[in-house]
Amino acid sequence: MKLKFELVKTEKNTKARHGIIHTNYGSYKTPMFMPVGTQATVKTLSPEELKDINSGIILANTYHLWLRPGEDIIKMAGGLHKFMNYDQPILTDSGGFQVFSLAKPKDISEEGVKFKNHLNGDNLFLTPEKSIEIQNKLDSDIAMSFDECPPASASYKYLKNSLERTLRWAKRGKQVHNNSNQALFGIVQGGPYKDLRKYSAIETVKLDFDGYSIGGVANDGESKADMYNAVDYSIPYLPENKIRYLMGVGEPIDIIEGVIRGIDIFDCVLPTRLARHGHAFTKYGKINIKNSKYKTDFSSIDNNCDCYTCKNYSKAYIRHLIISNETFGARLLSIHNIRFLTKLTEDLRESIEKDNILNFKEEFLNNYCGGQNE
Amino acid sequence: MKLKFELVKTEKNTKARHGIIHTNYGSYKTPMFMPVGTQATVKTLSPEELKDINSGIILANTYHLWLRPGEDIIKMAGGLHKFMNYDQPILTDSGGFQVFSLAKPKDISEEGVKFKNHLNGDNLFLTPEKSIEIQNKLDSDIAMSFDECPPASASYKYLKNSLERTLRWAKRGKQVHNNSNQALFGIVQGGPYKDLRKYSAIETVKLDFDGYSIGGVANDGESKADMYNAVDYSIPYLPENKIRYLMGVGEPIDIIEGVIRGIDIFDCVLPTRLARHGHAFTKYGKINIKNSKYKTDFSSIDNNCDCYTCKNYSKAYIRHLIISNETFGARLLSIHNIRFLTKLTEDLRESIEKDNILNFKEEFLNNYCGGQNE
Repeated sequence: MKLKFELVKTEKNTKARHGIIHTNYGSYKTPMFMPVGTQATVKTLSPEELKDINSGIILANTYHLWLRPGEDIIKMAGGLHKFMNYDQPILTDSGGFQVFSLAKPKDISEEGVKFKNHLNGDNLFLTPEKSIEIQNKLDSDIAMSFDECPPASASYKYLKNSLERTLRWAKRGKQVHNNSNQALFGIVQGGPYKDLRKYSAIETVKLDFDGYSIGGVANDGESKADMYNAVDYSIPYLPENKIRYLMGVGEPIDIIEGVIRGIDIFDCVLPTRLARHGHAFTKYGKINIKNSKYKTDFSSIDNNCDCYTCKNYSKAYIRHLIISNETFGARLLSIHNIRFLTKLTEDLRESIEKDNILNFKEEFLNNYCGGQNE
Repeated sequence: MKLKFELVKTEKNTKARHGIIHTNYGSYKTPMFMPVGTQATVKTLSPEELKDINSGIILANTYHLWLRPGEDIIKMAGGLHKFMNYDQPILTDSGGFQVFSLAKPKDISEEGVKFKNHLNGDNLFLTPEKSIEIQNKLDSDIAMSFDECPPASASYKYLKNSLERTLRWAKRGKQVHNNSNQALFGIVQGGPYKDLRKYSAIETVKLDFDGYSIGGVANDGESKADMYNAVDYSIPYLPENKIRYLMGVGEPIDIIEGVIRGIDIFDCVLPTRLARHGHAFTKYGKINIKNSKYKTDFSSIDNNCDCYTCKNYSKAYIRHLIISNETFGARLLSIHNIRFLTKLTEDLRESIEKDNILNFKEEFLNNYCGGQNE
């Protein structure tokens, strides 16, 4: 059975929505943040820890799993859920983002993209059909259409041609999609241009996907204004009763702005990547645990936080672990950072129920931006 | 309160003993294997995971914690238990082993050892008094006397002079020891020589420590015969009612041989180090999870094992994690490898109760040595 989205409530003053995603692996409330498990593991964490954090869907990367261990091995294992022992829903991306960011040089044609395997330099060719075939085998709960992710610097003309091709790719992918337990999402492109976003949204929706994502908003060099505009330009043309997904977004502020604009789900490597570098979200901004002022700071990272890390460990201990290259440090910070974002979405849901999301935003930003940013 | 050792039973046919160590953090059965938490963390694992494995005492390294974060910071945190959130007993070594193995060049005098900090090249000086002072501050449950660890190649004459000095160091350390919750152990040295081991054991016991370890048996280049001889030569002179600790030993076979010779506790980095390199203990010998034959092996590492890893994950998945440099792989193998050794000690206790440890040894070795060794 494919997942179903139930829209529960739209906030009074904004486009923010609260809903429920019903899946074969349970029901989950939106807005939701999805941690990234690139290589079939959310770096350093166990499935039980993710549950403990109250995290729901995770994202796995088709490109990485295609190269290693290979989709056929995962299919033999009984699919990604069984392979990685994860009994909550999984979304797989299309591989497009990695092909366009990791695997250079590349050669884009109507048929697909030729590029070099970033691990061993082998020639590879990814097409919309191949991306869907891999995702069908991975047996994730949500598959994404294969799209081109143009750089932020791309011209209007390039973006227009690119999104036309992305639409043709979306259609081709949908035609070969063959997994009755897997939803398939379309992706709206169009860079920072209002007319392109509108056109892309309308044409993508005509193809009738199970959900829609807004892509091309987390590229290097793109401004926050461009990101918010891309959402504003796209949302009016997306159906109310389908999930809306803002890809690659994980800054607390951007999650809030996305939710206010009508986004339901988000994903980003940010919380785990920050963790590995010793950074932690707090109510009063990001901190860098390596700072020497934390040497003898025996308080928790954020005394407003209910996570395992904050309940049991001090900044001084976590600092010691990070400085000493002990992976338990990255694990403790990953738990905290993911919990920070899932807690943020819980608070956003509550503010939607109470119709006070704008007040919530103001208070959150006053604290978050008024504090440290290390 | 200092820990107390209660000898419960000696096996009928050998010197193997089963006992209970009563500590401020609970009571634990011997024989026992102690995982190593070098930098105040057993690499990749949480305290809860160690409990789940049924592990008891862990070892932390005085040398490493002295350099980073420093014993004063750990004292300010309320001691090592509080600092690392570990509510089972902790043993600290003296720093001697690391000074003699990691921190070269060194300059040994009657007063102590001059050497270079292996992290930044600073000149450092460690004395028996300093080692005990650091351990007092760390507030571990068991402190070790500062000893010289001569190389396996050392001459009889060198070893004799060295152990005389180690005896004087042991006495000096005991005189300054000042922590009523911390036991202090003496260390028997003497290399492979029967008369030196006897002399060292008798003279160390005269100093009346809370327990005794047999040192200098896990050096590079030392044979298994030398190791077993060192134990055989020392044990007769150690009191029945005190813990006997074989330092740095963690190969399953050596644990069995040590127990048969009358050893109670063991420590070694082996299970966690093997894990990081993709090796796993099994009933039928060690396996290398990176071998391509495990690519599509969806069975657990060892179907005789009751650990979290074996209950939930396949060889194929763990292989994928290790090959992809995902630390969750090292974590899963660390859980398994430590559980393998703690289970071995549980089985050894049972065989002591049943007076059939020699049969147990034969059966274990038939399986372990008759299988793969990858």
